[in-house]
Amino acid sequence: MTRIAQQAKRVSASIPTIRRLPSYLDVAKRYRHDGNDVISGTVIAEELELEAIQVRKDLAVTGIVGKPRVGYPLDELIAAIERFLNWDRSLRAVIVGAGNLGSALMGYKELKDHGLVLTAAFDASSDRLGVRPSGPTVYPVSDMKAVINRKQADLAILTVPSKVAQDVCDSLVDAGIKQIWNFTNVQLRVPEDVLVLREDLSSGFAVLSVLRPLD
Amino acid sequence: MTRIAQQAKRVSASIPTIRRLPSYLDVAKRYRHDGNDVISGTVIAEELELEAIQVRKDLAVTGIVGKPRVGYPLDELIAAIERFLNWDRSLRAVIVGAGNLGSALMGYKELKDHGLVLTAAFDASSDRLGVRPSGPTVYPVSDMKAVINRKQADLAILTVPSKVAQDVCDSLVDAGIKQIWNFTNVQLRVPEDVLVLREDLSSGFAVLSVLRPLD
Repeated sequence: MTRIAQQAKRVSASIPTIRRLPSYLDVAKRYRHDGNDVISGTVIAEELELEAIQVRKDLAVTGIVGKPRVGYPLDELIAAIERFLNWDRSLRAVIVGAGNLGSALMGYKELKDHGLVLTAAFDASSDRLGVRPSGPTVYPVSDMKAVINRKQADLAILTVPSKVAQDVCDSLVDAGIKQIWNFTNVQLRVPEDVLVLREDLSSGFAVLSVLRPLD
Repeated sequence: MTRIAQQAKRVSASIPTIRRLPSYLDVAKRYRHDGNDVISGTVIAEELELEAIQVRKDLAVTGIVGKPRVGYPLDELIAAIERFLNWDRSLRAVIVGAGNLGSALMGYKELKDHGLVLTAAFDASSDRLGVRPSGPTVYPVSDMKAVINRKQADLAILTVPSKVAQDVCDSLVDAGIKQIWNFTNVQLRVPEDVLVLREDLSSGFAVLSVLRPLD
């Protein structure tokens, strides 16, 4: 079992379940926005091409119980998912690597809507430093430990070139960071109490490549 | 069952299995690079914090069979995974949306290494058009159908703002695109024969948010 799957036991939910919850939240908000008061598990399942039983099982981890033949009250459902995901609270983070990908993530409105607060960004290149029209100030990587201590952050989003990823990771751990969202292709080595989630585009590309149109 | 899971039956592999194969390939290449000739399923499992039985089951879809008490010959293993993933062939694609995220993907070397060939990019903003030092030429969105017909592409990578995502998707389908890699937060509506894979950062963020350090 991966370290992350072990940690997921803490909240009595599997990683795949946690990963599906944001899409349930999207559907719930859309139906609420369209003027509905309730939504059935079956409708959510149809919207997302999942099995209804899967949807009900997943939603149960948030503590919400659907009413037979009626469904879930939408306001309750939205609140329950957001509470379970901690999206009603802020999560302080820094971004390391202010290139195209880092800049894209700085402007990613959805993450802000879900509580992500970027307290600082860092880059090794001097022409990327400074205050930006949107997003956090970009500091030199050499100031990382001092700035993180001052600005506070639990999470670091890693968007640096692969060849420096492990070194930057070591510095982040040294600065007290406990979670790393790894956008590089490096399998990072970290102490037991640090959690790494790798966001791996290769896995999505693998699915598309395998399922490419038949010639 | 989702449309994508149904399609995966064609290759007798589940989506989670396909998604894990690139990480096995990474480990195999690293061990080969370090001078090894064989690798055991147990070692791959330890490297990736998975169960050994899972690794063996996943690798079986590629047709490779490990030798008892020895493991997998690395050259064979690498070739088998790459062949199964079609990473020994090219996949022609266009990128729609040449902002930060689109530009980051244009420069994503790993995807190129796995056969992704970007034949064109498109953007609605005139100051992003033209030839780039790296990556494909950026054309106006209005030329999309004509350029796709001329340059050929099976896959479109969608990195446009959410509010135009469905319209752009409709144009892509009209231009003959059969696969869409959707980086927007929109649940796209497409005909039966078009496959959409949504790359959803919210699901990764959900995991980190749920498993945040305890206060």
